Amino acid sequence: MTTVIHLKEIKALLKHTDVVTAMEEGFIQYSNGNTVVPPVGELLFEDPKGDAHIKYGYIKNEAYYVIKIASGFYDNAKLGIPSSQGLMLLFDQKTGVPKAVLLDEGYLTDIRTAAAGALAAKYFAPKEIKAIGIVGTGIQAKLQLQYLQKYTPCTTVWIWGRSKEKAAKFANELGADFDVHIADSTTELAKHCNLIVTTTPSEQALLKASDIQKGTHITAVGSDTEHKQELESELLKKADIVISDSIPQSKSRGEVYRATQDGKITEDDIVELGTAIQDKKLQRTNDDQITIVDLTGVAVQDIMITEAVYTAYLKK
Amino acid sequence: MTTVIHLKEIKALLKHTDVVTAMEEGFIQYSNGNTVVPPVGELLFEDPKGDAHIKYGYIKNEAYYVIKIASGFYDNAKLGIPSSQGLMLLFDQKTGVPKAVLLDEGYLTDIRTAAAGALAAKYFAPKEIKAIGIVGTGIQAKLQLQYLQKYTPCTTVWIWGRSKEKAAKFANELGADFDVHIADSTTELAKHCNLIVTTTPSEQALLKASDIQKGTHITAVGSDTEHKQELESELLKKADIVISDSIPQSKSRGEVYRATQDGKITEDDIVELGTAIQDKKLQRTNDDQITIVDLTGVAVQDIMITEAVYTAYLKK
Repeated sequence: MTTVIHLKEIKALLKHTDVVTAMEEGFIQYSNGNTVVPPVGELLFEDPKGDAHIKYGYIKNEAYYVIKIASGFYDNAKLGIPSSQGLMLLFDQKTGVPKAVLLDEGYLTDIRTAAAGALAAKYFAPKEIKAIGIVGTGIQAKLQLQYLQKYTPCTTVWIWGRSKEKAAKFANELGADFDVHIADSTTELAKHCNLIVTTTPSEQALLKASDIQKGTHITAVGSDTEHKQELESELLKKADIVISDSIPQSKSRGEVYRATQDGKITEDDIVELGTAIQDKKLQRTNDDQITIVDLTGVAVQDIMITEAVYTAYLKK
Repeated sequence: MTTVIHLKEIKALLKHTDVVTAMEEGFIQYSNGNTVVPPVGELLFEDPKGDAHIKYGYIKNEAYYVIKIASGFYDNAKLGIPSSQGLMLLFDQKTGVPKAVLLDEGYLTDIRTAAAGALAAKYFAPKEIKAIGIVGTGIQAKLQLQYLQKYTPCTTVWIWGRSKEKAAKFANELGADFDVHIADSTTELAKHCNLIVTTTPSEQALLKASDIQKGTHITAVGSDTEHKQELESELLKKADIVISDSIPQSKSRGEVYRATQDGKITEDDIVELGTAIQDKKLQRTNDDQITIVDLTGVAVQDIMITEAVYTAYLKK
């Protein structure tokens, strides 16, 4: 019997799900070569413009395999429906029987991305966080801040967004639990914060090497294509530790890709996230180091979060 | 809101669905170049052995796009569950919104294959059917016979199977509505029948050129890989008309592939099904011709049957 789980129930189940630990296990399996993830399937549409992506794979010798369908139709806004759509499918890895359809409307992709940000902070942020800087004001900005709360007691937050209005709205939503400041520039934000998360689809570097203080950790979430870039390439050269969620993907997209293309770093300067979290020598060793984690999004995250939600459902 | 339709309801909806006409429209769209069907996604499993295939695509300017997941785990029999598993997903082509999940357990693939067989008979069988020959005794053997009933009043049936027991069981299931004969050989079957459907996974030719009478139509359903073969290559040379459901696929699998490899025919001897059914000149012109339709299975069939069942659901 195939279980169908709707978004409302998925949100309830996530309250009983340790997604950050699931991401940690997933990245380790990925970097240890225990995942099977074929190339992404793609379907393009002309009228109206849209694309659908099919990501699928499994972790060897585990219980399930997972298929994720995610689409973007940018004219949807005119119709009042979200541009991102999607669902997750979970099958028995030993028999092929479909076990669950998660009608998550793209939500689990947002959550697994936020959880990876928290994981990056857990392993690479300095011990004492003075202030958290969030670049961007969208859904991912909010979720990153929410998931970071599990790993730091810091509630001083600086936010920067291209739109002053959206920044003010975001600040307002954070409410009384946070001490919120709106930065005039990313330079001002970087001056105050030693944990920064960038969450925009920018195609021009927003954080400059000269902006960043000693001891800062940066998680770059926004760039997942060859054109997007949030960090100046020089900043990756300045950093003491540069981590990529996927070495193969960093050859074609993300901050590491851009800095490599610009000749500022080479592949030898990069460590994969799942490798680094298994080895203390590859992590921050003092509070003066600058660390960067570049997240482009890996299919193993989709596999892990889908399995985690279904496991929570079975335990219910 | 995403609709979930279970197998029992799918079977009920099929009673109100003209699947053969849906196949006809689909093959025409396919041969006319109006479909978008990227390469099939594949996921392989080692322990136990299994494979999952992801087929997806759409017909331009129609309402939906479709994704089919189908798997085969051949050790499932030991667990008492079918080796074939699968489901169909239907999405709005203009927004990406998931409209329906059809938990068909692979059933719609069986039905669309049977319906294509009926379509082949509709256009290529001789006017008067003396007897229907069915090679094979599995699910597809039964379904082909069932769907043929819509296009011929003939109830005289010859069946042949490698296992005498299974042939006897199949004959028994057909019951009083049919005049059933069990053939000792495919040669005997071919002597009596002028409409033959082959439905086995054989890797050795079962029907020889010398067996086939003038005026016979053959639909070859079984071969969908490079290794499977039900018709002797010489038989495709002997035939007056040879049709393939997909010219591109016939370059790598099916009866046409094998006969081409054996140097008995060339690509110029083949017409695509969707082209042939639009042009009377490409169809049987007298009752002496031998005609062959080679069905390897095309994604547009999955698209069409999924849309047809969902349309029946909406009208309910």
